[in-house]
Amino acid sequence: MKVSNKNYRTIWQSEDNREIVKVIDQRYLPHQFLIKEITSYIKAIKAIKDMVVRGAPLIGGTTAWGIFLSAVEAKNHNHDKEFIINACHEFLKARPTAVNLSWAVNRMTNVIAELSDIEAIIDILENEAEKICDEDVENSTQIGNYGLEIIEQIAAQKADKTVNILTHCNAGWLATIDRGTATAPIYAARDAGVDIHVWVDETRPRNQGSNLTAWELLEEGIKHTVIVDNAGGHLMQHGKVDICIVGSDRTTRTGDVGNKIGTYLKALAAYDNDVPFYVALPDSTIDWKIRNGLEDIPIEIRDSEEVEYVSGFLDNRTRSVRIMPEGSQSMNIAFDVTPSKYVTGLITPRGVCRANESDILKLYPEFS
Amino acid sequence: MKVSNKNYRTIWQSEDNREIVKVIDQRYLPHQFLIKEITSYIKAIKAIKDMVVRGAPLIGGTTAWGIFLSAVEAKNHNHDKEFIINACHEFLKARPTAVNLSWAVNRMTNVIAELSDIEAIIDILENEAEKICDEDVENSTQIGNYGLEIIEQIAAQKADKTVNILTHCNAGWLATIDRGTATAPIYAARDAGVDIHVWVDETRPRNQGSNLTAWELLEEGIKHTVIVDNAGGHLMQHGKVDICIVGSDRTTRTGDVGNKIGTYLKALAAYDNDVPFYVALPDSTIDWKIRNGLEDIPIEIRDSEEVEYVSGFLDNRTRSVRIMPEGSQSMNIAFDVTPSKYVTGLITPRGVCRANESDILKLYPEFS
Repeated sequence: MKVSNKNYRTIWQSEDNREIVKVIDQRYLPHQFLIKEITSYIKAIKAIKDMVVRGAPLIGGTTAWGIFLSAVEAKNHNHDKEFIINACHEFLKARPTAVNLSWAVNRMTNVIAELSDIEAIIDILENEAEKICDEDVENSTQIGNYGLEIIEQIAAQKADKTVNILTHCNAGWLATIDRGTATAPIYAARDAGVDIHVWVDETRPRNQGSNLTAWELLEEGIKHTVIVDNAGGHLMQHGKVDICIVGSDRTTRTGDVGNKIGTYLKALAAYDNDVPFYVALPDSTIDWKIRNGLEDIPIEIRDSEEVEYVSGFLDNRTRSVRIMPEGSQSMNIAFDVTPSKYVTGLITPRGVCRANESDILKLYPEFS
Repeated sequence: MKVSNKNYRTIWQSEDNREIVKVIDQRYLPHQFLIKEITSYIKAIKAIKDMVVRGAPLIGGTTAWGIFLSAVEAKNHNHDKEFIINACHEFLKARPTAVNLSWAVNRMTNVIAELSDIEAIIDILENEAEKICDEDVENSTQIGNYGLEIIEQIAAQKADKTVNILTHCNAGWLATIDRGTATAPIYAARDAGVDIHVWVDETRPRNQGSNLTAWELLEEGIKHTVIVDNAGGHLMQHGKVDICIVGSDRTTRTGDVGNKIGTYLKALAAYDNDVPFYVALPDSTIDWKIRNGLEDIPIEIRDSEEVEYVSGFLDNRTRSVRIMPEGSQSMNIAFDVTPSKYVTGLITPRGVCRANESDILKLYPEFS
């Protein structure tokens, strides 16, 4: 997507040195656009942990490139394949909720299962990381196409009025390789000439909505309004939201959706006000091994400093202000689970389905 | 309540000069405890508008004292009673949602309806403002007593375990004259030796939860944890909330509750998880003239800067950081309405009732 009218992906291999991977450092957006070089698998893990990169699909892509880098390091420091396998294990511990992380590790380890020559491993891992990223872009494109059909149906019912879409957190192109999951239908609708406006939940504690989603929509010239996370229910009560579209970090095979904390509250409000609530996700986000989201999706508890301080722009740099008394305790729960009954449908690269096992399996029969 | 172990109310007449009213300047809490002198009715209106003071009952108390000050000004500048009546009209425009404002104006104008002598008016307005504030404290005490019964019932069912109470925004003593509305049962439970812990919603955009509620609970030594507004649903799904208690800015005679934006979302989550959801309020917060909260409770739209910037402590002073891109638009809806069906009960100074017209009128037959 565009940054100052130049096209970017969120992660790419350096043009002049295959041993360097570059990412947009998302911690400084929207105020500063910085590109960070990743030159080792440890740095890739750190980028995931510190949320230099975030979003389930991009965590998958970064994991893939990070494992490629571990192979490069193995070659440069004369380690054997065991070094790469160990790196893979370390990636698994980086963040708990997004299943794309283990999915990417599996993809990368599968292609080298039969290999031992490091040069051959490097080549095949490079190829697989590229493939994972290209597939993710294709997934986003397909999600966009299928989501567009839903938005166009709403637009047809509203005659000439603007379609209002609410989204939570950032499931935008910054959360993927390009185009996004929840935002893919938004970009597709814009491309198709549908008149749209996006309500952007700021998404405390890290404000990925006001920091990232607002920024991408601004760069892409899409009408949007940032609101506090508390406001979406009121808007839905008053008919100001036509559809909610969010992403997911891990969805069960039964359609329970793990996503950024607060998603569940928006789903409840959508349900209460008959607003369709869709979840856009690539199949890499479906955890085929689990059925009960509330019990089985691991929920990350992050540093409480993210609740105690708010980061923003002041005096031409990013600074943090403390928003609670010294001495008060806080808790930072990063994700929640929306039970499938509150999900109108899943928008996948293979089409739209209802959030239940049999309908999901109709699109993905190979997991029956 | 206590600040550094000294007892305060939120508003009081200066001990040595009856023409000065003092308030705690709530804009600087929790980082700085500052007392502000109010010396004219215009300054009282400004204190309400700028949220030096806030909370429905305290807005009522400040209005009462502000109207008293208008009479003092009338005397000092040789204006007649018309000056006071005009002041009353100006108060009505200060903030739209809290009905206590017009309620206080009515109380104050009623007592001077038959009077024209300014000295006599001053005396009776001073007396009425004192009475309004004392009654509010008594209301809070009674709310505390009735709410305590509910908490004790929950405590009895939990055996020796902590009772977890979730609250939104600040309906604490800082929102009233003393003891609070939603917090009154919390303080009563503490006094009665019940083991309690409070989940404090930070309450964006102005963070009255993390700034004010956390501070009061800290000063009073009550266990609490600040969470983002997004987190309450997850906690309720996992049995970590035994009861929600919130305040109200305007409640219809049918039990629809206007309160800080986001209250509705918590009520939905409570309903979905069978968590009792109570609203604590004095009768001055009930608008007897209206029945349909969603249609009839006026919702204040405040300056969008409150969404765009977050205020907190940095370098030993209160500063604001910008948390969204320059160029993105935002919207600041200050209140929402929780339909009565999601309200387990109202805790009033006359007892607890269900949120419907006939049950409310059993406690308040004079409004039948």
